[in-house]
Amino acid sequence: MPHIPLESHLPGITGLLEYRKDSAAPIRELTQILLRGESTLTEGERELIATLVSSRNQCVFCTTAHTAAADILLGESETCQMVKDDFETAPVSEKMKALLGIAAAVQENGKKVTESKVERAKNAGATDREIHDTVLIAALFCLYNKYVDGLASFTPSEPAFYQKLGERITTVGYNRLPGGYDQLKTENQNLK
Amino acid sequence: MPHIPLESHLPGITGLLEYRKDSAAPIRELTQILLRGESTLTEGERELIATLVSSRNQCVFCTTAHTAAADILLGESETCQMVKDDFETAPVSEKMKALLGIAAAVQENGKKVTESKVERAKNAGATDREIHDTVLIAALFCLYNKYVDGLASFTPSEPAFYQKLGERITTVGYNRLPGGYDQLKTENQNLK
Repeated sequence: MPHIPLESHLPGITGLLEYRKDSAAPIRELTQILLRGESTLTEGERELIATLVSSRNQCVFCTTAHTAAADILLGESETCQMVKDDFETAPVSEKMKALLGIAAAVQENGKKVTESKVERAKNAGATDREIHDTVLIAALFCLYNKYVDGLASFTPSEPAFYQKLGERITTVGYNRLPGGYDQLKTENQNLK
Repeated sequence: MPHIPLESHLPGITGLLEYRKDSAAPIRELTQILLRGESTLTEGERELIATLVSSRNQCVFCTTAHTAAADILLGESETCQMVKDDFETAPVSEKMKALLGIAAAVQENGKKVTESKVERAKNAGATDREIHDTVLIAALFCLYNKYVDGLASFTPSEPAFYQKLGERITTVGYNRLPGGYDQLKTENQNLK
């Protein structure tokens, strides 16, 4: 049961973003800029950062949703699983391992991002902007995870729900749908 | 030394918000809505939530800046100090103690916001919207704290800097200054 009344057909973050639409708008915009905007990191790499942080925060809704998005973008489901299990042995570049190390540190506390972690990323070719964006994406997903779990929003168990959501955020992105979530609501009802 | 090149006269969050202005805009907007927008919580109460979370995350820049803002809004400096030390014994209402308890839980992990913590807030008269906003403000300040410390932005030691910043965010708010931070830059140079 959510701690506040949320529409039952809008689980996880979706109901929260409809609960207060004025604060939702800049959250959506920030996510769209960071995860879908111009970047030298691929959308798949940025979804891996989001997934790792959500997984470390044990936020089941966000972890499952962004795993679905990462899997779609990468075209396979092994890499994301390995990143969550142990990113040091995952089939990603040394630069990505270093950036995931920075993201994991941010999840604990900003101060855990040590000089040596940043040095490793720079030595592997990471740009200042990539380091900046990794820190800010990790910080943003801490916001999401705390928002979703802090209000105990509903976490669906059906894999089909997350598959749909993954498809949406890899095609439409993070902007609000025209007409809000009415479409998603109908789709969720159809999943029942 | 910051992990990425930031303008030396723009410490803490200020340099980060100038480093990437496109992502800064929605961060500023969200903060302005939550901390200065219409609410049944006073601006001082909302600054206390921001300060408590920043203090628990040991983010010196944010804690000092929002303590200055809270002190200005409350007209005294004892309450904010007591909130940081032990909010249960601070001279705030039972409702604020319950909301601060929720914010402190969010700082740890969203899942720490238990039914009983929410029940306590509701019994003390907190509305759903106040509970929602408390969770989101706490989550937003986790973003800020992780952003500021994750990139090791500069933390000034001069109290005069935070006094100026506190005055700005209690009068101008969180929107970008016309002409950006040039004015703040000049003021900071004048403090040297």
